[in-house]
Amino acid sequence: MFNIALFGAGRIGQVHSANIDGHKETSLYSVVDPYGDGAAKLAEKYAAKVQTTEEALTDPNVHGVLIASATDTHAELIELAAKAGKTIFCEKPVHLDIERVRDCLATVKANSGKLFVGFNRRYDPQFRKVREQLSAGTIGKAESLLITSRDPSPPPVSYIKVSGGLFRDMTIHDFDMARFIMGEEPVSVYAQGSTLVDDEIGQAGDIDTAFIVMKFPSGALATISNSRRSGYGYDQRIEVHGEKGVLQAKNINEDTVEVWGENGCVSAKPEHFFLQRYEQAYRAEWAHFVDVLAGRAEPECSGHDGEQALLIADKALESLQTGQEVKL
Amino acid sequence: MFNIALFGAGRIGQVHSANIDGHKETSLYSVVDPYGDGAAKLAEKYAAKVQTTEEALTDPNVHGVLIASATDTHAELIELAAKAGKTIFCEKPVHLDIERVRDCLATVKANSGKLFVGFNRRYDPQFRKVREQLSAGTIGKAESLLITSRDPSPPPVSYIKVSGGLFRDMTIHDFDMARFIMGEEPVSVYAQGSTLVDDEIGQAGDIDTAFIVMKFPSGALATISNSRRSGYGYDQRIEVHGEKGVLQAKNINEDTVEVWGENGCVSAKPEHFFLQRYEQAYRAEWAHFVDVLAGRAEPECSGHDGEQALLIADKALESLQTGQEVKL
Amino acid sequence: MFNIALFGAGRIGQVHSANIDGHKETSLYSVVDPYGDGAAKLAEKYAAKVQTTEEALTDPNVHGVLIASATDTHAELIELAAKAGKTIFCEKPVHLDIERVRDCLATVKANSGKLFVGFNRRYDPQFRKVREQLSAGTIGKAESLLITSRDPSPPPVSYIKVSGGLFRDMTIHDFDMARFIMGEEPVSVYAQGSTLVDDEIGQAGDIDTAFIVMKFPSGALATISNSRRSGYGYDQRIEVHGEKGVLQAKNINEDTVEVWGENGCVSAKPEHFFLQRYEQAYRAEWAHFVDVLAGRAEPECSGHDGEQALLIADKALESLQTGQEVKL
Amino acid sequence: MFNIALFGAGRIGQVHSANIDGHKETSLYSVVDPYGDGAAKLAEKYAAKVQTTEEALTDPNVHGVLIASATDTHAELIELAAKAGKTIFCEKPVHLDIERVRDCLATVKANSGKLFVGFNRRYDPQFRKVREQLSAGTIGKAESLLITSRDPSPPPVSYIKVSGGLFRDMTIHDFDMARFIMGEEPVSVYAQGSTLVDDEIGQAGDIDTAFIVMKFPSGALATISNSRRSGYGYDQRIEVHGEKGVLQAKNINEDTVEVWGENGCVSAKPEHFFLQRYEQAYRAEWAHFVDVLAGRAEPECSGHDGEQALLIADKALESLQTGQEVKL
Repeated sequence: MFNIALFGAGRIGQVHSANIDGHKETSLYSVVDPYGDGAAKLAEKYAAKVQTTEEALTDPNVHGVLIASATDTHAELIELAAKAGKTIFCEKPVHLDIERVRDCLATVKANSGKLFVGFNRRYDPQFRKVREQLSAGTIGKAESLLITSRDPSPPPVSYIKVSGGLFRDMTIHDFDMARFIMGEEPVSVYAQGSTLVDDEIGQAGDIDTAFIVMKFPSGALATISNSRRSGYGYDQRIEVHGEKGVLQAKNINEDTVEVWGENGCVSAKPEHFFLQRYEQAYRAEWAHFVDVLAGRAEPECSGHDGEQALLIADKALESLQTGQEVKL
Repeated sequence: MFNIALFGAGRIGQVHSANIDGHKETSLYSVVDPYGDGAAKLAEKYAAKVQTTEEALTDPNVHGVLIASATDTHAELIELAAKAGKTIFCEKPVHLDIERVRDCLATVKANSGKLFVGFNRRYDPQFRKVREQLSAGTIGKAESLLITSRDPSPPPVSYIKVSGGLFRDMTIHDFDMARFIMGEEPVSVYAQGSTLVDDEIGQAGDIDTAFIVMKFPSGALATISNSRRSGYGYDQRIEVHGEKGVLQAKNINEDTVEVWGENGCVSAKPEHFFLQRYEQAYRAEWAHFVDVLAGRAEPECSGHDGEQALLIADKALESLQTGQEVKL
Repeated sequence: MFNIALFGAGRIGQVHSANIDGHKETSLYSVVDPYGDGAAKLAEKYAAKVQTTEEALTDPNVHGVLIASATDTHAELIELAAKAGKTIFCEKPVHLDIERVRDCLATVKANSGKLFVGFNRRYDPQFRKVREQLSAGTIGKAESLLITSRDPSPPPVSYIKVSGGLFRDMTIHDFDMARFIMGEEPVSVYAQGSTLVDDEIGQAGDIDTAFIVMKFPSGALATISNSRRSGYGYDQRIEVHGEKGVLQAKNINEDTVEVWGENGCVSAKPEHFFLQRYEQAYRAEWAHFVDVLAGRAEPECSGHDGEQALLIADKALESLQTGQEVKL
Repeated sequence: MFNIALFGAGRIGQVHSANIDGHKETSLYSVVDPYGDGAAKLAEKYAAKVQTTEEALTDPNVHGVLIASATDTHAELIELAAKAGKTIFCEKPVHLDIERVRDCLATVKANSGKLFVGFNRRYDPQFRKVREQLSAGTIGKAESLLITSRDPSPPPVSYIKVSGGLFRDMTIHDFDMARFIMGEEPVSVYAQGSTLVDDEIGQAGDIDTAFIVMKFPSGALATISNSRRSGYGYDQRIEVHGEKGVLQAKNINEDTVEVWGENGCVSAKPEHFFLQRYEQAYRAEWAHFVDVLAGRAEPECSGHDGEQALLIADKALESLQTGQEVKL
């Protein structure tokens, strides 16, 4: 049984807590959260301790840490945990500044640390099946990838202001998905965007609607379509076209009931948001991290993946600002 | 927190154990199973006791019992539990003999017992939505109901022999579903059947493929289509036609990935069997039973429902044997 | 070029006129219709003659006749045409009285006549593909067949009164479809029905909603679900279950547009009625009849098929009246 | 009855011939095609004349001309027809050179000519319904448009060489569709492309795979995804996201049959190519042109539309060559 210290008792920390508790090889050992009484509540629910960062990292009973705290604390906690010899699961991103990411990863490397970066969508069974079918040659060589990624509704502007902007906050998942599906690094990126959902987002210097085009060394192309609002639930689809056909991962809808009447057929919309849609993905990524803890696997999704996705986000922003395709 | 004694540590008992443990108001207190080491294993997993029937029923800490043991033990356990004042959740059926069912229910009544019979499909979110939409008048008055219920593959003949036959074992769920959806009792039933899947089933005196037609007092009609084998997973669909349209509950498929190529589109088949398809239903029926335990609700699905479904099954068998429609 | 004399200038006669004119080997030579000015209008549109029955049948330029007149004239016209040596296409049914059908077919046989009976649905590309896939062994041996056949809205009661009743008028298509798909004759039939759509239909001695169950020599079972009203367009589906899977022919919808919003997805309902849904089928059956005219084929759908479908309809009515399964 | 002179007896000319003949207000009067015996064959089929260009344009019986000849003859024929006072239907494009298009349109204007440019896809019932639903406010203001347009397989390289390149030959339809759906002119365009399907296409200086991003004055964005090969039929889809939801026009598949078995569900692929998919669109655009001939309508799709789509194609090519977003 591996004991886990959880940093951050917020919404995503609670999701991970349930998965830590539900896995037969892991136990929620302690919760670290300096703000409010979230740590105490979560600790009580799972019969865990409340610890400070220092306590958790010096506690020899802690085998792994799960960093789900505020974004700006990730890099430092990763470094401390690496120095303390703990196996590390960190929610994306490592940091919003790429130089800080590189320093952090250098520290991890210097301490021979093991770091898994939680790009949860790689563990969605639909997307994983697409990746596997592509690898199996079902549609031949990949030629075009289309990623649709639209949130049901925008976050508060207070969040937008500290988010790093659409590309670093939201599209970063899609950049990682493009890398995951295509299996190669893009060589160029172009981005176009608008503020259509909420004027305040524009006033905060960000956009809420975007299209991105990437090119890969093989000549394959990818496009990402983003919006902070869908009007019909969480829209998370990919399709990859190859020499012999196309692989499509559709949304998962709320139910399978259809009502047919004079005005046609009414059926259910996609599951509301990431907690529903990626429930299985969160469990599956935890199962992978347990394999890492147990020495049965290396992190499939590493600090390098976090760095690369952020780099593309930075270059996409540069493209948005210059109106030019940017080389990578 | 309500303490539950579980009778039966088999496959379905294990499903219920997880739900008992996962509900914030219930705890798996003890496991009763005289055969093998199933009780001990399950008890260890959930930090529960192993008890005998007598111990469980006399233990004042036990608030409710969940009967998931062999079918022929249900009626007696219900009676003992009712006499012991425990709130009772019993897997269907109460018994395969209708007179025994009636005696048992009389005992429950005499002891003012609370008995919930686990027709799990009533708690499937798809079927429940159909029932709710019908009640809401979405398609007007119900006129025709079609229930498709096909297992992926037949059970062993040893099971068939003690099952009570297709109608009492498998179709009983569909008879209950017809009553649940239509909200009225059928007035006639006709059944036709064949042995097409496995000759041994026929040699055991049973059938493996059937169509049933029922008529209701309102004039509405229902048909049930059954097979012990589908070839493509667990096929569980209903459609109810009304004055203004039709409500359809489709299968839930394994994933949402589509592969389009020269030979068309390949997509996933339905989820394999009842443990997958009705996972949500098992959780939801447990939540209802907790409401019963807490005095917040009366059993929505009672001993009477168990009796009525069995009665229709008996009459369907009579119809199959006589080639005549049987009045109810 | 084969010259065709058309009997009956009504709605279905007009459909056939267009197909006769559109086929490169046939020409609409004359129209026969004693009522109103329909014949004159249709003849003008296609530069054809108006003829009397006698003129058409004695005209050596007429190679084939298409009988689309009132039902009660079919048998006599078939006999006259057979005696005149014309190749005959007759809309279903030959007659509503089975003895009259048998006499008529005997006359055709005595004159070595060629008679095609227009069970148009056999030529629907969806249903034909199901038949072909079944023959190709895609799902193994057929075990269960479900036919859904629901009209968008009921005909006037004046029509109901001369229609021969639901089974001979509407279900007869489904009886033929069952024979076509299964490739064997049923050995028993059971029918249950109600008047739910229109009280006047009941007062006219007919029903408007029905379920039928048939059994075949192989043990395979079939059910038919009928209603004179759907509320959502013309509902024409079949599914046939076999050893290895199921073949389903779905409805054809009006368009492929989906609107996703807060309340789910709205998509189009099935094409309105038989003129839309079976447009391709009418063309394809005509193409087959041209093969018969040209001596390249024998009628795939013969007088015998018309007789058998009517016989099942008669026995279904007997079952409805007696509450018993009827042997065939 | 309007008499039509058809220029060009090739594949698309034959499609139009059937529609001219099938419309109750138009008649195929003559066919003009200097190459081979196509004109004679088509004229014979529809009892039309064979004429030279001069004969057709000076014949007072000719009311309208349909230009479906080789691309490089379009502009001159339009000018001659405008001068001759004929109402003009011209297949896209007017010309591959934008200056030549402008000269031609000036000539049309100087002669008060009526010119309809055949962007057939605007008349596809699916796409038209999307446009209508958008106008009706079903999803609020448009924010993002995605056009998927992929041919089943590439044309011969000999065609590629005279086609004007992917953007002017194929994407031009999608540029027009974007203008049609959005109802505004784009202000910028970015294009990225590759040669993935056929090396010879690259050697001919063209690409076969492309993504295009456009921005509109409202801030709305559009992307187009193109390939000369799909592997699964003609892929023609659009989706437009708005404030309140999304409108999707899906492909039309070959049939509605599904085969479910151990390996999932197999269903039919999209209709093969434009002759099938846009059959209804060709008929509907002809009906519109008849309204123009009859003075009941002005051309919905004019020379200006042809010019604008070509202009965007030219700018997309500039973007592809420079790696920069190009302003319009």
